[in-house]
Amino acid sequence: SVNPDLSSERQTASFSVEKLTALLDGSAEQTRIRRAVVEAIESDPVFSRENQYFQTQNERYEAAVRKAVHLQKKMREMGWTENGPEYKYIYRALSGDVAFLLHRVFMRSISVLGSDKQIAKWIPLATQHKLIGSYAQTELGHGTYLQGLETTAVFDTATQEFILNTPKISAMKWWPGDMGRSATHTVVFAQLYVHGKCYGIHPFIVQIRSLQDHSLCPGVTAGDIGPKMNFEHIDNGYLLLKNVRIPRENMLSKFCEVRPDGTYVRQGSQKINYFTMTTVRISLISDEVLTPLMKACTIAIRYSVVRRQSKLKPGEQEAKILDYQTQQEKLLPQLAAAYAFHFTNDYLQELFNRGYREIQRKNFDMLPELHALSSGFKAVITQHCTAGVDICLRACGGHGYSLLSGLPSLYTKILASCIYEGENTILLLQTARFLIKCFMAARAGQPVPPSVTYLAAVKHGKCPAKNKLDFLSPDIYTEAYQHVAVRLTSSTAAKLQDLIQSGVKKHDAWNQCTVQLVQAAKAHCHYIAVKNFAETVEKLETKAGIQKIMKHLCDLFALHGIFSNTGAFLHDGYTSAAQMDMVTASYLDLLAVIRKDAVPLVDAFDFTDKSLNSALGSYNGQVYQRLYEWAQKSPTNQMSPAYERYLKPLLHNTLSKL
Amino acid sequence: SVNPDLSSERQTASFSVEKLTALLDGSAEQTRIRRAVVEAIESDPVFSRENQYFQTQNERYEAAVRKAVHLQKKMREMGWTENGPEYKYIYRALSGDVAFLLHRVFMRSISVLGSDKQIAKWIPLATQHKLIGSYAQTELGHGTYLQGLETTAVFDTATQEFILNTPKISAMKWWPGDMGRSATHTVVFAQLYVHGKCYGIHPFIVQIRSLQDHSLCPGVTAGDIGPKMNFEHIDNGYLLLKNVRIPRENMLSKFCEVRPDGTYVRQGSQKINYFTMTTVRISLISDEVLTPLMKACTIAIRYSVVRRQSKLKPGEQEAKILDYQTQQEKLLPQLAAAYAFHFTNDYLQELFNRGYREIQRKNFDMLPELHALSSGFKAVITQHCTAGVDICLRACGGHGYSLLSGLPSLYTKILASCIYEGENTILLLQTARFLIKCFMAARAGQPVPPSVTYLAAVKHGKCPAKNKLDFLSPDIYTEAYQHVAVRLTSSTAAKLQDLIQSGVKKHDAWNQCTVQLVQAAKAHCHYIAVKNFAETVEKLETKAGIQKIMKHLCDLFALHGIFSNTGAFLHDGYTSAAQMDMVTASYLDLLAVIRKDAVPLVDAFDFTDKSLNSALGSYNGQVYQRLYEWAQKSPTNQMSPAYERYLKPLLHNTLSKL
Repeated sequence: SVNPDLSSERQTASFSVEKLTALLDGSAEQTRIRRAVVEAIESDPVFSRENQYFQTQNERYEAAVRKAVHLQKKMREMGWTENGPEYKYIYRALSGDVAFLLHRVFMRSISVLGSDKQIAKWIPLATQHKLIGSYAQTELGHGTYLQGLETTAVFDTATQEFILNTPKISAMKWWPGDMGRSATHTVVFAQLYVHGKCYGIHPFIVQIRSLQDHSLCPGVTAGDIGPKMNFEHIDNGYLLLKNVRIPRENMLSKFCEVRPDGTYVRQGSQKINYFTMTTVRISLISDEVLTPLMKACTIAIRYSVVRRQSKLKPGEQEAKILDYQTQQEKLLPQLAAAYAFHFTNDYLQELFNRGYREIQRKNFDMLPELHALSSGFKAVITQHCTAGVDICLRACGGHGYSLLSGLPSLYTKILASCIYEGENTILLLQTARFLIKCFMAARAGQPVPPSVTYLAAVKHGKCPAKNKLDFLSPDIYTEAYQHVAVRLTSSTAAKLQDLIQSGVKKHDAWNQCTVQLVQAAKAHCHYIAVKNFAETVEKLETKAGIQKIMKHLCDLFALHGIFSNTGAFLHDGYTSAAQMDMVTASYLDLLAVIRKDAVPLVDAFDFTDKSLNSALGSYNGQVYQRLYEWAQKSPTNQMSPAYERYLKPLLHNTLSKL
Repeated sequence: SVNPDLSSERQTASFSVEKLTALLDGSAEQTRIRRAVVEAIESDPVFSRENQYFQTQNERYEAAVRKAVHLQKKMREMGWTENGPEYKYIYRALSGDVAFLLHRVFMRSISVLGSDKQIAKWIPLATQHKLIGSYAQTELGHGTYLQGLETTAVFDTATQEFILNTPKISAMKWWPGDMGRSATHTVVFAQLYVHGKCYGIHPFIVQIRSLQDHSLCPGVTAGDIGPKMNFEHIDNGYLLLKNVRIPRENMLSKFCEVRPDGTYVRQGSQKINYFTMTTVRISLISDEVLTPLMKACTIAIRYSVVRRQSKLKPGEQEAKILDYQTQQEKLLPQLAAAYAFHFTNDYLQELFNRGYREIQRKNFDMLPELHALSSGFKAVITQHCTAGVDICLRACGGHGYSLLSGLPSLYTKILASCIYEGENTILLLQTARFLIKCFMAARAGQPVPPSVTYLAAVKHGKCPAKNKLDFLSPDIYTEAYQHVAVRLTSSTAAKLQDLIQSGVKKHDAWNQCTVQLVQAAKAHCHYIAVKNFAETVEKLETKAGIQKIMKHLCDLFALHGIFSNTGAFLHDGYTSAAQMDMVTASYLDLLAVIRKDAVPLVDAFDFTDKSLNSALGSYNGQVYQRLYEWAQKSPTNQMSPAYERYLKPLLHNTLSKL
C-alpha cells in the first residue's frame, strides 16, 4: 500500500511520467530494454545489495568478486553480449557493486596502446578470464603529473628483457583497483631507460601473481591499501617491484617500440591518448555522477512529502516538509541540475561521437575543444552533483544520516568522482588554458572552435529585462551567462598580460591568476550547460506536458545559478540590483511551481526500490516501518560481549580494580 | 626524523608558536594542564585509537564501553574530578571516542528538571554508575517540533502510576545514544494525560533494562538503530513502550507536578529550559566543531608542504602543492575560519556566563539574545566548519579519501553537527525571527539587546575604500559586513510587511520569506564574527608577533567572506565593482603572506600525532612510509576466501556451471 501522502502527489502530475522516462532513456524501446536488464539482475539473489550497509570491507570485496563471476554466467544465460544493447544497463543495474572493473581498463589499454600482435595475444586471454588485469599508473607520491612517475623499466639488451623497479617508497604503485587481492596482471606505467637514456613514461604488461596458485611473483610485493571512504568492494592495491623482468614484447608498442638492439622507435600519433582520457571523463558522468544525484533526489523528495514536521498554518495538521520554502530551495535546484546535466551529457556524447568519427579519418582538429569541454564538465558536474547529494542528505535530517537512508553511501561514493580521473582544480585550469588561448585568438580575428566563438564578441550592453517574467526568457538568462563568461575570461586574460608586461615571469603570472582562471572555466561550462538546456527544451515535443515542465526546470537551473552567484552578474552592472530582485522573485516563484510536480519528476528517473536501497526513498513511502524492520537486522542487534565484560561489573560495582 | 620539506616551514615562523598555543588555551598554565591530561590518556593503551579505522561497528561500540569503564579508574588514579581543571580536556584527549555521553545528559536533565527529592535520589545512583542513563526525546516521526511527539504518559489515579505508550510506529523513540545496548534507564519525553486531558510534553524517568541481568523490562522493546555515517562507537537506539508503568514520583517535577488526586500544578519558570538548549549549542562548538576543523587544517596543511606535484617553474623540482594559489585558496581561509570561530566561541562563552549570572538573579532579560546568537552561531559555525573539513579532505586528493588520512572520519562526524541539537535551517529562522522583531523595535525607537543595536541605524553611505590596502582596515570591512546585515534584514522585513499588507496570511508570508530570512540571519552572524575577531586582535599583545599574524588571519577571514559572496556587497552599490577588484587583489595577496606561516599556525593548535590519528598529518611529515606501514595492518591484507571460492575456478575455467 502506498502512503497516501505520497500517492496524492502523483495524482496531480502535469505531464506523462512514462513519456519523460522514455525521453531520458532515449526512446520507449530503450526504456523497455533497460527495465528487462534491471528485472533480470534484481530478481537474482546473488546480486542483492540488501545487506550492503551491514557488511565489512572484507565481506563487500567477497560479494563483489562473487557477483563479477556470477555475471559471466548471467550474461551467457540471458544472451547479453558486450556489443549488445543491454550491456550499458548492466553496470547501472548492479549499482556498480561488482569487481573486475579495472579488468576492462586493462583490456582497453591493450586495445588502444598495443600492437596488433599484442592485441591478438592478450585480448582473448582477458576475454576468457584466463587472467585478471589491472592498470597501475598512480604512485604513492605521484598522481596527476605523469612525468613525475618514478617507476623505472630498464632495457637489458643481453636478455631482451625490461627490468622493472619501484626504486623509492614514493614510487610504489598505489590505488589501482582489483590489484590489492585479485589481479594476476597489470599494465605498469614506468620511465623507460635504454642504454642509460630516459625516454619517458611507457606502458608495460607485468604479471604480478601466479596463474596456478595466485601467489605473488618473484620480486613483487602487493596488497590492499586498506579502508577508504567508500568502495569497500574494490581491492584498491599497492605494488612494489624489485628487479622484475618481463620480455621485450610486453611493452605496449602501438606508438613506441624498443627494437632488439635497443633502438627506440616512435610511430604514429600519440594524440589519440588524450582522446582516451576524454572518453573516460565523459563516460563516467552518467553512471558515476548523474545516477547518484538522481537517486539522492528521488530519496529526499519522496521523503519530504511523507515527513511532516511543525505547522505551516495554525490549527492544521503538521505540514509536509516539502511545503516549506527552505526545503524547496534545497532540493528543487538539485532536481533541476540533474536534468540539466543529463542533457549536458547528451551534448558531450554527441560531440564525442563526432570527434571520434573525425579521428578515425585522421583529423585531430576537434581534440583541443573536446579535451577542454570534457575536463571542464567533468569538474563542474562532479562538483555540482556531489554538493547536490550532500544537500539531499542534510535535507533529510537525522534519518539522512543513517546508512539505511542510502544517502551516506551515495555521498561518499560520488565524492570520489571529484578526485579521480583528474583532480577537479587541475582540470578546470586545463579548460582555462584553452579559454585564454581561444580568447586571444578570437580577439586577433583567428578562427576558434564552435563552443568558444562567443568569446570573440566584445559586449558592453546591459541586461534588457524589465520585469520578473522577462527572466523566464531563455534569451535573457543565456545572454547573462554568456556575458559573465566573457567578462571573467577577458578580465583574467588582461590581468595575466598586465603581470607579464610588468615583468612577472610567465609561470608566476599564471599561478597568480589561477583562482580567477578557475572561475572563468566554471562560468564557461555553466553558460554552455544553460544554453544547451534551453536549446534542448526548445526542440522538445509540446505534447504530454513534457516541454512545459522541462522549461520550468531549465528556468530554475538558470535562475538558481544567478541567485547563488549574484556578484558575478552584478559586477560590471550588466544586471542591476533591481533586476537581481526580479531574478530572486522569479526564482522563488518557480520553486512553488515545480514543487507541485516534484514527485512525478523523480518518479521519471525510474529507479526501483532495490536500486535505491533506501528506507526513505521507496516507491510506496512506508518510511518508518522500513527503517524499523531494517535496523533490527543490523549485526549490532546481536548479543554483544560488552555487557558481561564491562557493563555488569560496572553496574554491580565489581570491577576488580576500581 | 622530520621531513625537511616540513621542518623548513617551521624555521621561518614570524611568531612564537608556544605563545599562540597559550593564547588559544587561555594561558600557559592551561596549556600545561591540557598537555598533562593528553599525555596521561595517550600513554594508556586502553585509550588507543590506532585500530579505529579497521574496526566494525560492533568492535567500536565494545571499545567505547571499555574506555568509558576504564576512564572511571583512570580519573581516580589521576585524581581528576568532574569539577577539577583537567576535566574539560579529557573528552578532547579521547577524541570523543567513549561511551556513556548520554549518561551525562541524563544526569543534567534530572539536575535541571528534577525536584530536590528526585535529585537526591537519582544523582548519587548515576554518579556511582549503579544505573546507566540515556535521554529519549526524538521519535522516529518527530524531531525538532516537540509538540508533535506522540509518546503518551497517562496518569492512573488508582495505582498512582503513569502508563507509558508509544502508540504508533512513528512514536517510537529513535536515535538516543547509549540506549540501543547499554542504558538501564532513560528520561522519556511524553504527552502527559490526566483524567483525559492533555497537558503537553513532560519528562519521565523510565527503567528499560534489568539491573540484575540487563534483560529488557516488561513492555519495553529496545535495540540499536544500525549503521550510521559515523558514531559507530555509539549505540544509538530505538525504544517501544507498551503499557509501561512507572511511579508518580518518576515524573521530573521541578516545574510541573501531578498531585496524587490528579491535580496538575505548574510552578516556577520554564524559561530556564531554553537556557539548557543554549548551553548545549554553545558547548558543542568547541569540541565537536572547532576541534575537527583545526585537525583537518593541520592534516591538510602539513601534507600540502610535503606533497610535491607538477612544476611551478620550468627546470625546477616539483613544487610543494601549498605553493599553488589554488591550494592556498582552498586551505588558508579554513585556517582563518578556525581562528575566527575560536574567538567567536570565546565571545559566546562570555555572553553565556553573563547570562547565567543574571538568570541566577532571576533576571531572564538576556535569554532572547542568547537564544538567537547560540542558535544562529550553532548553524553558521557547524555549516562553515563542515564545509571546511570537506575542502581539506578534497585538497589532499586521493590520499585524503583514504580513511588512514583521518579526514573522512572527521568529515562524517562533523557533518552530524549540522543536524543534531537543532537542524540548522530551523535554527537560522529562529535567529531571523529575533532579528525581524528587534529591527521593528529598533526602528520604532524601542531599546534592543546590544548585539542588534546596529539595526537601528539607517545607512545609505558608500564604502569609503580608495585602494586595496584600505581593505586591510577592520573598520572598512566590518562596516561593509554591518551594511549587508542591515540591508538583508530590512529588505526582508519590508517584503514581509508588503505581503501581509497585500492580504497574504501571516504564516504564508513568513514561509515566502524564509529563504531570504536565512540569508539575513547568516549575514548577522557573519558580521558579529568579523567584528569580534577584529576587536579581539585589537586587544592582543603586540609582542612575539602574535598580533600581527592574527591581524592577517582576521583580514583573510573578512575578505574571503566578501570574495565568496560578492553579490551581497555589490547589490545596492555600497561596494563598487572597482572596490570589489581591490578586495580580490588584497585577498589574493594575503594568501601568499599567510602561506609563509601556515605550518606554524597549525602547529599552534598543538595536536599530538595520536590525536590526529592520520597518516598525512603527523608532526614529522613522514607521510608515505606511514601510509604503507599502516595499510599493511588492514584486515583486508589477511587471506580472503575469495580466491579459492571464485577466482581460482574462474581462472582455471572450472566454474562448474559456466
